[in-house]
Amino acid sequence: MGPDTEIIAGYEVYTPQAAADYGRSTRNSTSTAVHPLDQLSITEITDAASIVKGHYGNTGVKFNTITLKEPKKVDYVAFRDSNGPRPDREAFVITVTKGHHVVNEVMVSLTKKTVLEVREIADVMPILTLEDLDVCERVARNDPRVIETCREIGLTDMSKVFFDGWAVGADERYGFDRRLQQGLAYWRASELDNQYAHPLDFAVVIDTEKEEVLRIDIRKVDGKRVAVPKDQHNFLPDFIQDGYVTDRLKPIEITQPQGVSFTMNGNELSWAGFHMHIGFNYREGIVINDVSVDDMYEQRRRMLFNRLSVAEMVVPYGNPDIPHHRKHAFDIGEYGMGLMTNPLKVGCDCKGAIKYLDAVMSTSQGYAAVLPNAVCIHEEDNGLLYKHTDYRDGTVVSARDRKLIISQIITAANYEYGFYHTFSLDGTYKLEVKLTGILNTVPLTETEEAAPFGTRVAKNLNAHNHQHIFSLRIDPAIDGLKNTVIQNDAVSSEIPVGDTGNLYGNAFYCKKTPLKTSKEGACDYNHDTSRTWDIVNTNKINPACQKPVGYKIISRESPNLLCKPGSLVWRRAGFTRKTLWVTKYREGELFPAGDYVCQSTGQPGWPSNETVVDWAERNDNIENEDIVCWLQFGITHFPRTEDFPLMPAEPLSVMLRASNFFQKNPALWVPPASHDPDTASKDLNKCCEGAKTSTADLGVGKISAKL
Amino acid sequence: MGPDTEIIAGYEVYTPQAAADYGRSTRNSTSTAVHPLDQLSITEITDAASIVKGHYGNTGVKFNTITLKEPKKVDYVAFRDSNGPRPDREAFVITVTKGHHVVNEVMVSLTKKTVLEVREIADVMPILTLEDLDVCERVARNDPRVIETCREIGLTDMSKVFFDGWAVGADERYGFDRRLQQGLAYWRASELDNQYAHPLDFAVVIDTEKEEVLRIDIRKVDGKRVAVPKDQHNFLPDFIQDGYVTDRLKPIEITQPQGVSFTMNGNELSWAGFHMHIGFNYREGIVINDVSVDDMYEQRRRMLFNRLSVAEMVVPYGNPDIPHHRKHAFDIGEYGMGLMTNPLKVGCDCKGAIKYLDAVMSTSQGYAAVLPNAVCIHEEDNGLLYKHTDYRDGTVVSARDRKLIISQIITAANYEYGFYHTFSLDGTYKLEVKLTGILNTVPLTETEEAAPFGTRVAKNLNAHNHQHIFSLRIDPAIDGLKNTVIQNDAVSSEIPVGDTGNLYGNAFYCKKTPLKTSKEGACDYNHDTSRTWDIVNTNKINPACQKPVGYKIISRESPNLLCKPGSLVWRRAGFTRKTLWVTKYREGELFPAGDYVCQSTGQPGWPSNETVVDWAERNDNIENEDIVCWLQFGITHFPRTEDFPLMPAEPLSVMLRASNFFQKNPALWVPPASHDPDTASKDLNKCCEGAKTSTADLGVGKISAKL
Repeated sequence: MGPDTEIIAGYEVYTPQAAADYGRSTRNSTSTAVHPLDQLSITEITDAASIVKGHYGNTGVKFNTITLKEPKKVDYVAFRDSNGPRPDREAFVITVTKGHHVVNEVMVSLTKKTVLEVREIADVMPILTLEDLDVCERVARNDPRVIETCREIGLTDMSKVFFDGWAVGADERYGFDRRLQQGLAYWRASELDNQYAHPLDFAVVIDTEKEEVLRIDIRKVDGKRVAVPKDQHNFLPDFIQDGYVTDRLKPIEITQPQGVSFTMNGNELSWAGFHMHIGFNYREGIVINDVSVDDMYEQRRRMLFNRLSVAEMVVPYGNPDIPHHRKHAFDIGEYGMGLMTNPLKVGCDCKGAIKYLDAVMSTSQGYAAVLPNAVCIHEEDNGLLYKHTDYRDGTVVSARDRKLIISQIITAANYEYGFYHTFSLDGTYKLEVKLTGILNTVPLTETEEAAPFGTRVAKNLNAHNHQHIFSLRIDPAIDGLKNTVIQNDAVSSEIPVGDTGNLYGNAFYCKKTPLKTSKEGACDYNHDTSRTWDIVNTNKINPACQKPVGYKIISRESPNLLCKPGSLVWRRAGFTRKTLWVTKYREGELFPAGDYVCQSTGQPGWPSNETVVDWAERNDNIENEDIVCWLQFGITHFPRTEDFPLMPAEPLSVMLRASNFFQKNPALWVPPASHDPDTASKDLNKCCEGAKTSTADLGVGKISAKL
Repeated sequence: MGPDTEIIAGYEVYTPQAAADYGRSTRNSTSTAVHPLDQLSITEITDAASIVKGHYGNTGVKFNTITLKEPKKVDYVAFRDSNGPRPDREAFVITVTKGHHVVNEVMVSLTKKTVLEVREIADVMPILTLEDLDVCERVARNDPRVIETCREIGLTDMSKVFFDGWAVGADERYGFDRRLQQGLAYWRASELDNQYAHPLDFAVVIDTEKEEVLRIDIRKVDGKRVAVPKDQHNFLPDFIQDGYVTDRLKPIEITQPQGVSFTMNGNELSWAGFHMHIGFNYREGIVINDVSVDDMYEQRRRMLFNRLSVAEMVVPYGNPDIPHHRKHAFDIGEYGMGLMTNPLKVGCDCKGAIKYLDAVMSTSQGYAAVLPNAVCIHEEDNGLLYKHTDYRDGTVVSARDRKLIISQIITAANYEYGFYHTFSLDGTYKLEVKLTGILNTVPLTETEEAAPFGTRVAKNLNAHNHQHIFSLRIDPAIDGLKNTVIQNDAVSSEIPVGDTGNLYGNAFYCKKTPLKTSKEGACDYNHDTSRTWDIVNTNKINPACQKPVGYKIISRESPNLLCKPGSLVWRRAGFTRKTLWVTKYREGELFPAGDYVCQSTGQPGWPSNETVVDWAERNDNIENEDIVCWLQFGITHFPRTEDFPLMPAEPLSVMLRASNFFQKNPALWVPPASHDPDTASKDLNKCCEGAKTSTADLGVGKISAKL
């Protein structure tokens, strides 16, 4: 049985009846036991909502979040590593009282079919769901003052006015008695027209629960309204039609005739000696747990990471004009990377042989909402893995590298982000992020300059400077739970040139500083010393090098937050103040900007919304401890004309690389190309032109024009 | 007719007779005129040598270099852009008087079949050829003192002792009256055994021309010789045999059934709107000239770069013990990236549909030596190019990116480097370098620590800290010859938080500093400001943004030179003192460490060996001028056990990205995936398991174990 309705683009929504039918129809195929870290199923979400409704007496409850309550680490590790009991399945539910701002957290046992605990949380606002964003547009479009505001700039057809719902950031005019959104206003010339070519000069502030417009903030120039930019800048095929060049690129076909190299048991994946569990939630999207690797030298499976996820991000804009100062989206904490995930399409988002996983989210009614193809799993060739030639006789060995990529793509209003969790054969985990989508734009008058806080990307269009800063949460388990972080700085010898010990001045070394407490664990990147950090296990010594086994954090793309210390963004996005935080593991500390980011103030020690800044301040011991690393990386973006109207994807990445973890190159099990010939690839010189010698007459081989 | 002999691994050598036969046999197929930037052909090298021999009276001449003398820029640009006369073909020849150290530069007109000029160059040493490196091994192996030195550590079979010829770096015991090499000594247990597992405790210094051993420098520990590490660490299939895991990775087949998307006319390549000429020489290897792009918005072809090449590199080692201080290889200036290039193999070095170009080098006798498949040209899928989804209704557009890659791989004794010149559809040029091969090792006694200047990668084996610093030479022509470099620094507003103009403290902008003189053009990277540089043409204003058109230099991997100021390496590798140098274009200034790097002293203003440091000191105007940018990038490498015995490839890269060069995203001509369906890719959920709904019962789609 399939879903009943589709209320949000791409989602298939299951009413309780549809979920029950579905549960019956698939009962026979549920042979694999649920893994404790599997996301909630259609049935579990439906059950959780039903249990909560029963508990509340079924009146006036609006579901904000229904997600897996992950088992406590101690329980889960006992289950995983020591044959401990299977943890109960539990749901974590956030409800909002209909029409009000009261926020409750409800813990539900799905195993025992009961509510375990209800807690009212004061002075917080929960995440904005896609349904909430729809409220913003609906309310704004129908408000008489908004209609009048549009009329003043010549817009009388409100069906052509659109409002992107954004978190308000923080608005000091309101406290926690209002669940706010700001609606950024745009116009469209036609249904599919790119609205970001027609930004309006105002933003509305609405109350999501009361469904009312509170304010209309207009940015006037010289006391006057700003005209609507009317030039169209489109990129959909409906507009481009004959504008594509279709004969330039010949197809590249990528196939795996013998199938893919990974296997899955439920959501547990094995590939090329790596093992891991793929989870997914409304907030972080992909969560990778229990990453381990088969060590061919030690003939054992070794743990690497308990949990990897992109746990927060912020996109502060650099234009100080009101109301633009409010634009600093926390796309994970305020909207949810899971909720905003795209359903993916083979051959478009990923090429090759693709295994998709669905995501199961929830609606405000407590219905399960399935997002098909939310996660893409596939392999790619990754170029040269290793090579060496003996220059004397030409003896050569080389092999090809391979990537396993677990990815998702999200749409955050105008912008898109692709997240690619990548494993390669040398033991490396790399998170690559690709930025694409559409720049946030505002109208520009003839008398204004876009510079210095933005770029004029087209006539009357200003795209503001902004940063994208991400936080990768790494819960490491390098060969065991107790780890230590060592800071590595490449430095010249202190001995002067010509003195004993540095006669020719070439001496340099890696200065190693163990981070002992969570205050010391708050570190900046230092480019001058090519700073990296090793997560090591001092209890496990690599016999080859006689040093602790470790993995190295490599990140060169870690811009400083450019909003000044003390600024609104600096306060709210405390996690961006440091490149790396290392904290002692504590249950429930998952989100570095706090559990409740919407309308957060960033006040230190706020009990219902502690942040990584607070956790660092505890100054816990982090040496030889169960620790968590929070790694900030990102990019500062001064828009270019090339980014308009649709941005070419811009990549950035961070890496975790084996660093004296293995006794030798862990990829030497990979057969060299001579043992594993690639019969599909073609030497065009040979296959197209016969004997090679006929191509070399003028020195460099020639190729006929017909190619 | 084919080549006569093969004297160096991979090369096919043409005697004058073979070259003449070959010329006759191919005369009918030489329909395309030689491009002025094509490398010298077999015939041209043979002719050049013959003309020089005739001029010298054919006695005692040893050819060091026979290469294309590129036409003067003014003449070439006139030919290219203004129908000027076709420049004559000329050869640049370096000869060494046999058995002596006298170095002559000979300019030969191939068009006029005559010597144009002979210049004796004082106090320089020319590049070390592969033949020279062979001399080092032969001479060292047969020297009685070397034999005795080996006997002292128990090695009596000299056929098992090997010497890697290295440039000496600089040795203050000798001046320019000796053409020096140092031989690093190794032992092999058997013919194919990995010698780098058995480094010996000494290095020899030889005179390449006199063919004699000058010195044996032994690093004793506590006054004693160091034992030979005898443990074997091999990686060739001959040793691993059953050690490979052959069932883990299923083939990935990459094919282009309709052919590749590039065309070539001689060495002129066109692909996806890009145009360029592929050159090659003994020293820089690949040279990319005349990069231009078809602008769909302006409906014209626009120049980007006159010339791109990797012009120098240095690998300083950080261990101060004598004789290790001498290890700082300039692989381009001292050995030549062209000379050390690997012949490539389809399916191993590159996958897919490959077009290879041959390289034509020369021998000491003046014979042409063809290296087949020196350059690989191929395309790769490059992931997402652009994507946007309207979150309201799911309207989606996305397209795939594509790369064109022009690559070569070199072997520098123990180490390998892959150089990948990459163009992608958004107008980006990216140079990616992959480091692989084998670490340089030295023996370690039981009483020694490898740290801090190295890593014990295995018992009795120390791999020293080192850096790899490359210099990318960019001769830009952004929409014309006269360009300016603007330094970009991302900075917070100077206005305090709360003051007018920065009420909420979020203001930040890009501080732009034009570099006006070549002294100002010597800049450091600044990570704190995410520093980049725009190469702009102030004479061409982008109508969309009303700023000069430009390309941005993006490089985050630019470690400082860690050898101290005043040190030997700091003096010799002056180019590494700055991340970027911008100099005024002057004829013949191609190599930032000087034309003659072997045994160079780095003395400022050395007339026969000026470096980029000297050129910057001229303090030429570089604003709105014909300029050259020298970009340093690289990595500091503290060896890991994972890098032994054969390193997994480690990538690094720099980029040149359109920056307000195009009026809009230049890739919007690329048909979206929906218009250009990829029929080869497969949705495994669908193709392997039928209806998708049967896979989602536990929330996340499941995949059967048989996959």
